[in-house]
Amino acid sequence: MVGKESPAYAETAPEVDFRFVADLSEADDVIETMEAVIGRVPPEVLARAKQLRWVHSPAAGVDADLSPEMLGSDVVLTSSVGNGAIPLAEHAMLLMLMLNRDVPRWLRAQQERRWDRFRHGELAGRTLGIYGLGNSGIDLAQKAKAFHLHVIGVRRRPGQPSPYVDEVYGEDGFDRMLERSDFVVVTAPSTPATTGRFDAAAFARMKQSAYFVCISRGGIAEDEALLEALRSGQIAGAGLDAHGVEPLPPESAFWSLPNVIVTPHNGATSDGTARRGEQIVLDNLRRFTAGEELRNVVDKVAGY
Amino acid sequence: MVGKESPAYAETAPEVDFRFVADLSEADDVIETMEAVIGRVPPEVLARAKQLRWVHSPAAGVDADLSPEMLGSDVVLTSSVGNGAIPLAEHAMLLMLMLNRDVPRWLRAQQERRWDRFRHGELAGRTLGIYGLGNSGIDLAQKAKAFHLHVIGVRRRPGQPSPYVDEVYGEDGFDRMLERSDFVVVTAPSTPATTGRFDAAAFARMKQSAYFVCISRGGIAEDEALLEALRSGQIAGAGLDAHGVEPLPPESAFWSLPNVIVTPHNGATSDGTARRGEQIVLDNLRRFTAGEELRNVVDKVAGY
Repeated sequence: MVGKESPAYAETAPEVDFRFVADLSEADDVIETMEAVIGRVPPEVLARAKQLRWVHSPAAGVDADLSPEMLGSDVVLTSSVGNGAIPLAEHAMLLMLMLNRDVPRWLRAQQERRWDRFRHGELAGRTLGIYGLGNSGIDLAQKAKAFHLHVIGVRRRPGQPSPYVDEVYGEDGFDRMLERSDFVVVTAPSTPATTGRFDAAAFARMKQSAYFVCISRGGIAEDEALLEALRSGQIAGAGLDAHGVEPLPPESAFWSLPNVIVTPHNGATSDGTARRGEQIVLDNLRRFTAGEELRNVVDKVAGY
Repeated sequence: MVGKESPAYAETAPEVDFRFVADLSEADDVIETMEAVIGRVPPEVLARAKQLRWVHSPAAGVDADLSPEMLGSDVVLTSSVGNGAIPLAEHAMLLMLMLNRDVPRWLRAQQERRWDRFRHGELAGRTLGIYGLGNSGIDLAQKAKAFHLHVIGVRRRPGQPSPYVDEVYGEDGFDRMLERSDFVVVTAPSTPATTGRFDAAAFARMKQSAYFVCISRGGIAEDEALLEALRSGQIAGAGLDAHGVEPLPPESAFWSLPNVIVTPHNGATSDGTARRGEQIVLDNLRRFTAGEELRNVVDKVAGY
């Protein structure tokens, strides 16, 4: 167990022998015999851990856990996917509202004690395209319907249930979604299929009045293509919580573009996310010791 | 007709003789004979307008139209209520999200190119109290349910339909709503009954962790009591679009309190509000010329 000690673990699985460590280098004596790890397993540890059967990632997105060694191993990898879905959807709605209403302009006026009343947009009646219809994508769709938006979703498996989404497409509907949306929100995981999916051609298909929002992972948008689309007016603006390089370095151009809102990969950093994440871990721990099927098993080939 | 000339009026009511003026002092020659006014009618004009049967206010809230002369007259007053309900509910959700997540902190960090990641709240699971369940209150309740909030509403007539609201009370439930809510949003009109309703005693009943939001009219909260509650930590913060004095003067303390977000009575200033307002006017104009019952007739005693 990589992380803080908590009595909840021993209470959930009294027969298990736990070691709580800050990282696995502190657990060198048990690498060969440990059966499960809650936390990240470096490739060199994985190679030695011959008894290891299960690894649980405390993250929702496991792109950083999927080393070639993990891909080649038969260890079961589970994730905490879903723990931050609701606050991420809240963050996406917040960024959409902030862009649509030019919130930075109001906050500047407040600093200067100026009554700066201006005409702004409203979300009602606009079209939202969601790239990825997992937990956060579906929760975002639910919120968007209450905001009277038309919702188009693109997902890898369009046959899966997609409540609250007016039109669902597979990857073959990607261009159509881009062309019709006033807001495009990326909620998809970082996988080989999604990396670089938003390139210059994708931004060129978007409306000049449209906004791009990313709340899941950097790298799904190509940073240079996004910067160029923002600078040239190819799209109207962006709200970015996930970035290609994190922390976003001080010299990044994203910080200072007037039509960009940057937040520091912070959309789901709430007590609720931590609490739901622990519930997933403990539920899987109970299942593991009972020999039951685990939750949130990662499809290593799909990458999530 | 006080306002800009538009062919839509003559198209809707070809038999009507229209005058388009910037204010009624330009229409002195027709004061005694005019039968209807779209726009505000000053008391001295009302006294002379013996043929006047109908006045339509382009505003949603008619507190400024209800002079003692209007109260004492049998002229029918209609309003544009409902024209801005949706963008006002959007604005309320925006202010709630901004307060819950400390958006000003992120925007300061962005200005300074600082990666300032911190733990913030989430709206899901919290309780929202709505004071006033008219068009914007109900639309806000719909949005809040999609954000997984518990919704308590207080309205003058609790027997009226209140979809999306989990618990509905009359004024007798006001204190209970204040005590249980994490967010209190005022959507009520300014009337003799609502003026000063949020006084020191009301703020004292609220949780110290709770936020106060007002999107309808200033004066429903007593400014001095609200300032004191914000300064003393009696409540956690406020998001204010409507203010006791407008424009909010530069010397107002509200501008600079660190836990207050000020917007300049700007929540509904969208093309959509203008469009819906014109639709209401034209519909009422058609009804007036056809002798049908008008929409949005104001209850002058209730004040809205």
